[in-house]
Amino acid sequence: MRAAGVTLVTVGVFSWAELEPEPGRFRFEWLDRVLGSLHDAGVGVCLATPTAAPPPWFAMAHPDAMPVRADGTPVAHGSRDTYCVCAPAYQEAAARITRAVAERYARHPALRLWHVHNEYGTWCHCDHVAAAFRRWLRDRHGTLEALNEAWTTAFWSQRYAAWDQITPPRATQYLPNPSQVLDFRRFLSDAMLGHFLAQKAVLRELSPGVPVTTNFAFGSWVPVDPWRWAAEVDVVALDHYPGDRGTAAEEVAFAADLARGWAGGRQWLLMEQAAGVVYTGPRMLAKRPGEITLHSLSHIARGSAGAMFFQWRASRGGAELWHGGMVPHAGPDSRVHREIQELGRLLPSLAELRTRGPVSIGARAAILWDAQSWWALEAPAFPSSELRYLDAVRQAHRVLWHAGVPVDFAHAGQDLSAYDVVIVPSLYLIGDADAGRLAAYVDGGGTLVVSYFSGIADEHARVRLGGYPGALRDLLGVRADEFLPLDTPVPVRLDGGPHATGTVWSERLEPRGASVIGAYTGGDLAGLPAVTRHVVGAGQAFYVSTRLDDTAYGHVLTTAGLSPSPVPHGVELIRRRGAGEDWLFALNHSPGPRTLPADGTDAFTGARISGPVTLPPRGHTVLRVRQEGQETATKASGGEGANG
Amino acid sequence: MRAAGVTLVTVGVFSWAELEPEPGRFRFEWLDRVLGSLHDAGVGVCLATPTAAPPPWFAMAHPDAMPVRADGTPVAHGSRDTYCVCAPAYQEAAARITRAVAERYARHPALRLWHVHNEYGTWCHCDHVAAAFRRWLRDRHGTLEALNEAWTTAFWSQRYAAWDQITPPRATQYLPNPSQVLDFRRFLSDAMLGHFLAQKAVLRELSPGVPVTTNFAFGSWVPVDPWRWAAEVDVVALDHYPGDRGTAAEEVAFAADLARGWAGGRQWLLMEQAAGVVYTGPRMLAKRPGEITLHSLSHIARGSAGAMFFQWRASRGGAELWHGGMVPHAGPDSRVHREIQELGRLLPSLAELRTRGPVSIGARAAILWDAQSWWALEAPAFPSSELRYLDAVRQAHRVLWHAGVPVDFAHAGQDLSAYDVVIVPSLYLIGDADAGRLAAYVDGGGTLVVSYFSGIADEHARVRLGGYPGALRDLLGVRADEFLPLDTPVPVRLDGGPHATGTVWSERLEPRGASVIGAYTGGDLAGLPAVTRHVVGAGQAFYVSTRLDDTAYGHVLTTAGLSPSPVPHGVELIRRRGAGEDWLFALNHSPGPRTLPADGTDAFTGARISGPVTLPPRGHTVLRVRQEGQETATKASGGEGANG
Amino acid sequence: MRAAGVTLVTVGVFSWAELEPEPGRFRFEWLDRVLGSLHDAGVGVCLATPTAAPPPWFAMAHPDAMPVRADGTPVAHGSRDTYCVCAPAYQEAAARITRAVAERYARHPALRLWHVHNEYGTWCHCDHVAAAFRRWLRDRHGTLEALNEAWTTAFWSQRYAAWDQITPPRATQYLPNPSQVLDFRRFLSDAMLGHFLAQKAVLRELSPGVPVTTNFAFGSWVPVDPWRWAAEVDVVALDHYPGDRGTAAEEVAFAADLARGWAGGRQWLLMEQAAGVVYTGPRMLAKRPGEITLHSLSHIARGSAGAMFFQWRASRGGAELWHGGMVPHAGPDSRVHREIQELGRLLPSLAELRTRGPVSIGARAAILWDAQSWWALEAPAFPSSELRYLDAVRQAHRVLWHAGVPVDFAHAGQDLSAYDVVIVPSLYLIGDADAGRLAAYVDGGGTLVVSYFSGIADEHARVRLGGYPGALRDLLGVRADEFLPLDTPVPVRLDGGPHATGTVWSERLEPRGASVIGAYTGGDLAGLPAVTRHVVGAGQAFYVSTRLDDTAYGHVLTTAGLSPSPVPHGVELIRRRGAGEDWLFALNHSPGPRTLPADGTDAFTGARISGPVTLPPRGHTVLRVRQEGQETATKASGGEGANG
Repeated sequence: MRAAGVTLVTVGVFSWAELEPEPGRFRFEWLDRVLGSLHDAGVGVCLATPTAAPPPWFAMAHPDAMPVRADGTPVAHGSRDTYCVCAPAYQEAAARITRAVAERYARHPALRLWHVHNEYGTWCHCDHVAAAFRRWLRDRHGTLEALNEAWTTAFWSQRYAAWDQITPPRATQYLPNPSQVLDFRRFLSDAMLGHFLAQKAVLRELSPGVPVTTNFAFGSWVPVDPWRWAAEVDVVALDHYPGDRGTAAEEVAFAADLARGWAGGRQWLLMEQAAGVVYTGPRMLAKRPGEITLHSLSHIARGSAGAMFFQWRASRGGAELWHGGMVPHAGPDSRVHREIQELGRLLPSLAELRTRGPVSIGARAAILWDAQSWWALEAPAFPSSELRYLDAVRQAHRVLWHAGVPVDFAHAGQDLSAYDVVIVPSLYLIGDADAGRLAAYVDGGGTLVVSYFSGIADEHARVRLGGYPGALRDLLGVRADEFLPLDTPVPVRLDGGPHATGTVWSERLEPRGASVIGAYTGGDLAGLPAVTRHVVGAGQAFYVSTRLDDTAYGHVLTTAGLSPSPVPHGVELIRRRGAGEDWLFALNHSPGPRTLPADGTDAFTGARISGPVTLPPRGHTVLRVRQEGQETATKASGGEGANG
Repeated sequence: MRAAGVTLVTVGVFSWAELEPEPGRFRFEWLDRVLGSLHDAGVGVCLATPTAAPPPWFAMAHPDAMPVRADGTPVAHGSRDTYCVCAPAYQEAAARITRAVAERYARHPALRLWHVHNEYGTWCHCDHVAAAFRRWLRDRHGTLEALNEAWTTAFWSQRYAAWDQITPPRATQYLPNPSQVLDFRRFLSDAMLGHFLAQKAVLRELSPGVPVTTNFAFGSWVPVDPWRWAAEVDVVALDHYPGDRGTAAEEVAFAADLARGWAGGRQWLLMEQAAGVVYTGPRMLAKRPGEITLHSLSHIARGSAGAMFFQWRASRGGAELWHGGMVPHAGPDSRVHREIQELGRLLPSLAELRTRGPVSIGARAAILWDAQSWWALEAPAFPSSELRYLDAVRQAHRVLWHAGVPVDFAHAGQDLSAYDVVIVPSLYLIGDADAGRLAAYVDGGGTLVVSYFSGIADEHARVRLGGYPGALRDLLGVRADEFLPLDTPVPVRLDGGPHATGTVWSERLEPRGASVIGAYTGGDLAGLPAVTRHVVGAGQAFYVSTRLDDTAYGHVLTTAGLSPSPVPHGVELIRRRGAGEDWLFALNHSPGPRTLPADGTDAFTGARISGPVTLPPRGHTVLRVRQEGQETATKASGGEGANG
Repeated sequence: MRAAGVTLVTVGVFSWAELEPEPGRFRFEWLDRVLGSLHDAGVGVCLATPTAAPPPWFAMAHPDAMPVRADGTPVAHGSRDTYCVCAPAYQEAAARITRAVAERYARHPALRLWHVHNEYGTWCHCDHVAAAFRRWLRDRHGTLEALNEAWTTAFWSQRYAAWDQITPPRATQYLPNPSQVLDFRRFLSDAMLGHFLAQKAVLRELSPGVPVTTNFAFGSWVPVDPWRWAAEVDVVALDHYPGDRGTAAEEVAFAADLARGWAGGRQWLLMEQAAGVVYTGPRMLAKRPGEITLHSLSHIARGSAGAMFFQWRASRGGAELWHGGMVPHAGPDSRVHREIQELGRLLPSLAELRTRGPVSIGARAAILWDAQSWWALEAPAFPSSELRYLDAVRQAHRVLWHAGVPVDFAHAGQDLSAYDVVIVPSLYLIGDADAGRLAAYVDGGGTLVVSYFSGIADEHARVRLGGYPGALRDLLGVRADEFLPLDTPVPVRLDGGPHATGTVWSERLEPRGASVIGAYTGGDLAGLPAVTRHVVGAGQAFYVSTRLDDTAYGHVLTTAGLSPSPVPHGVELIRRRGAGEDWLFALNHSPGPRTLPADGTDAFTGARISGPVTLPPRGHTVLRVRQEGQETATKASGGEGANG
């Protein structure tokens, strides 16, 4: 580890059976040794509570505390994450082991960070959960009548006459109630957050100064709302595994920008990435030479305090024996480990970027991110099965990433006035207050770019009547009386723009104040508006009623004020605000060399660079450069002043 | 509703929780108001019993009355249709709410029609069902020995030594017994019919003059035999949702002809269609302008008493919030609602077509339809997984529909002598008596066109030995000793016919009296018969041993005496017999204008038309025309006399 | 049967409900009659114990003895194989019926062979199984600590503190422990073997001289290790159903060679094949004329004592009513039955090949076969989902089959010195002792051809550290530090070989003593070794690090010393060693005539043949020919001497 420059190690995740081999009997000696060795070597410890994997004895003693699937299938021990977060027996056992670990190590000199649990996300549908769900619903809705109204239980004879008639959404005969399903995900997020907070309280009590976090997983199956959770962790921690080798760099940028958003524009921490491989589903593809460093630098440029990996050694057994490691099965004499060592040599030069202040990459634009819209769109029976929230958000980010335009993520409830442009991809759910905030943002001079299927439903997932796009109809100056999901692409003409194509979605749109800046030129809507622009107060609001191809969508964003920044093909530039100077990260993701102008100081060598530099294939450079002028910085999130 | 010309509204489906918020406590005030308003507006009511969706309290109080899947999964409340039709608690609760509703509204002046339950089709495999299944089997088979023989239980050690050893087909280790599976579907149909009849008896008792029906759903998952049920409803009611926009018109014609068949050539009622959309599975595609009317007219021309829609208003919440409505989310100011209003203006002109007499579209041909063959072919492990009953039946109907040849649906047990041609697509199951009736039909001068995999099994789904096609071997004058399912198409040459192709299926066929009118010209059977014709008595019987392409299959039907009727491409003509005059519906399903000769009176304007009329794209005309000559009418089902 | 030349009939499989209609009451009269008739007709009987299908009364009386799926789903009666092999009630009932059958028929003059049960392979996860699994684990691992170590339970908090905390792998939250899963399959194999041995003991006791066997099914779902089982049956019996018509002949050769391998180079018995059809999954395709005989001769040439079929008559009912039969539904007047009769006329001429001595087809090469590597590779989460054991083994066999090179199957634990070449396809698991044996084999002059993903894990499925391919690293003289699974093919250049392609897999390979005889010429590994050769002692060891195309793989095998034998395209030659003379089977699998030189005596006609013979399409000839010279025979498994 010393050879690899490791400074922080996560320890103890899933170690419950090792620490408490029988109920109440603890065995800490091995962990004492591990922490001692690390401390002696100058390595800090991120110590985990082991509650994400109860031991075999727990499963045997408490069958009622094991998860139950929606169809009633009991989930057995034999993997990990086999617990019901609402089961009293689990809560008690988790509290006991947490306190025991904290009492033992709260003052250990190696301790830098508490890591609670692991990747919260276990669903359960048992009766403990049903009881907790009812309590949560009572808090949320107040009265049964309000719940019946919010859930539209008049449909299909679902009116509840008593709280205890309500259950989690379990296997049923046909379509479930989408409002119930959405509230259940919200409840699960809060139930797990309660579990986190209970542990955090113990850790706070016993080691007041040590920060506490948990690592966020990312996927449609995870019922965790990051905006709510981010407020409760001391540092946002992210696990990130790209799903495709071809788009890995873009996925890294997406995830890292999202993490910075969740962190409210503060520093966060990349807690897990795979060392040598990209998991594509059917196979693990090797990261190409240089990519370990490129991905790590991309995370750090975007605000991560460092680059952590799961895991140190590839395991020789157990369920994840094929998961990569910083030390592969082959041992240190391996391509992957040599790259890990190389990365370890680079990172100390970036230490200055670790900060408690705001983190800025100079974004003038923000994309709205809303887990609840995502969840709601996971329901069955939408007008199109291709209405995928993540596709819409990732397109917005991808187009800007390729254009070299830095972007933040934000939510509709926050102050957006620092941004020139706010992008709203398929924000299906929106409450009245948030809709009002967006209107005020535009009125105050902001530019909004809304894409299809936004503003449709209220916070209970009830459709807003009177014409789409519901809550944003007036702001956008349009009204659609009908959706026309597409089974084949349709041509679209954009004013001054490229030949464009719409897929997935279209709408019969009538301008009500907006001007038409793009029209369908084929299909059932030929001649009708496809893209509109509405001037409101000092600002403007664009509406894109179909899923444009990336080029055309980029044209709309350019029209909205986000012009591409010229960079060589395959090179990513991130300009991170530093104290006094900026840090310019130039990452060459392409398989060929790339040359670009440079004027600054090499962060790793200290050399002064002026004139073109050539990056080798999948190579990089990080330069300290003169900070950009005031005129672009004023609207940026955070800003140089705050970072000074 | 008045603006849209609505005259009949279905009310109360799935309203149980609204009507009986706790067991035995009823709340009718809201429904009193609804019925009162409708009556005041001159709108009639089709009043539903709400038994298809028990309230939450029912599920809580009677877990044993909830459905159980074949694998034992308990089905929870949370959707609709969560009940076991054999559970005593459900039967009692259903009887109670039905009687309460009937006592309240039996004499309501708005009441026109009782709508029992909704789309019967809920499967259950619980012990209540097992007990009822055993009683049904005892009635059907009489003795255990007869059942063991019918089910061939000597195979795989399944011989039952006592009735109570028999269960529904539940999740098991490998292939189930197909005779057990088939009898279970028959039992489910009868069990649900028993539930219908119990409600009907209550409604009859309390409102003797009011007709009673239930709406038929259509799908391979529905264990309802329409021939048995049609005899028990006062009017056949159909729910119909096309599955593909490109074939929607053809699907409408198919379903409407089928409904008229089930109704025994009497009037029926289209109880549900979607207003503005076609559900294709992955997405909802908008019906194109004009199609709402075209589909509705197609149904009415084929015998529907009207054109009903699910639903009046699109819901803003609940499981089907994206199901279309006559009033969409956007409200009355919408394309869809304007077309609904237009339809409402047209329909009064067709009032004369509502009749208690026979309904005829002048069909000289009938297609045999048999739900039990369909069910039997849904079993696993057939020689080809592409032996799909519905494909075969739909091909026969489709080919005639495109040829402009009207057709009825019939079953083998009825008198077929009125038809010149009877088409038998993949009638896998046939009892001896029905086989004898088909032989007598041919002997008496009829023409039979049988396609592959017909006559194979007896009514217990046991293969008839001695050579295929089993029960029809002698009638068709052929014998096959072997099936050769196809994995690639094979060429077929038809006498005087087009270049043809066979797919899915072929057979090694030996003529035994039949003449060969088509042969395989490639593949393993090159040179052997593919299509044959057997003269029997005064008639003839064709056999088609492969799945011909549509053109070639049409050629065979032409050879059998069903010549295409020339109509402009994309135009559908339906000539409905009226009193004195015929009603000629000309429906232009194409996106271009179409011109056709006309001589009659416009049913909507009363204008006298003589000479060519041009239908706009997706336009229509309905003309009252002189009735056709006696010679074609004599063999038609029903006939002008009876309609006079 | 007499007309078809039938000499042995399997009787009684799945007849339990017929034989014991209620617990303890037996009914043998029908079986007496069947055996009497067969005996009177001179037909021998292979009598089955009926335990693979308990009767309905058993399921009713012993719900705890029915199988339970991994997710807890109870498996109901209604098919076959519905029992838990570990349930005491089942064990008792099976012992009772076995003893009753044996007592009745042990001395029946028609009895030739006992057939225990049928196609062992039923999984269960119930508590009876859990208890038996724990006992088996205790036997295998001795101590809990050893088990925890073998299973790497330190990962994911799975350390067991007591034996009764261990369960079968049941439905769990995420990935299971692969060592647990593998041990469970081993346990199931042994648990079922125990059941077999219990029956065998009864049969041995009551009919000491009659051989006992059971029929082996083949599929990834079957947890039976044939190497262990083959030692316990008196004759290896195989059921074989090709899965594709185009490759059926090759699949037959594969299965028959495998059966001979399992039988240790002794005679075995083809107990089931389908008469007229090939089951391809979506459909049953007819065997083409001649193929029934070709497949049967291929089995016999490779050591089967005969050619049996499932089943005599195609059933008219029951779950397998569409399974083919020697007498099809059409009856004896049928193409299939005529071919069965033809086969029956041929077989007596081959009687001399029935032998208790070794069976040899003159193979100089062996392929290693290892069910446990197969099972292990069925786990999820490998680096590539395309790492399919059977693909790798079948490729090795296929390439040699097309090249006309005879081959045996063997296992690493046996003496391999008789073989010139031993092929090791994807032998994922290997113990140290077996690895040592392979090294000794090479050192002693043998040639080893190892393909990718071999030697990776130890017998507990734990990865061997330090570099791939683990246990074979030194023997092969290479080391890989990294796997690079492929998502697109990469070009490979072989020394003196064809243009080649690698798919599925590649590795960053460093020679450590081996010479490079093939290299990647594209992709991420361009320029690096793909195929190597290592001289060790008197022998050599090849390593193939990617999935080569068949032609290229054949080139490697040729380089290893297995040159193709020239035969006309589509003709298969098998030279079976006989006493004094060899038997040359020439099977023309092609649709055209094929001519080949011949010099011998026609086995069926006794005619002397010298000069070219022409085989008709799908025709054959069997010649008695002069035995091949000593020089090639010395290394063959078995050998002429032993067969004399």
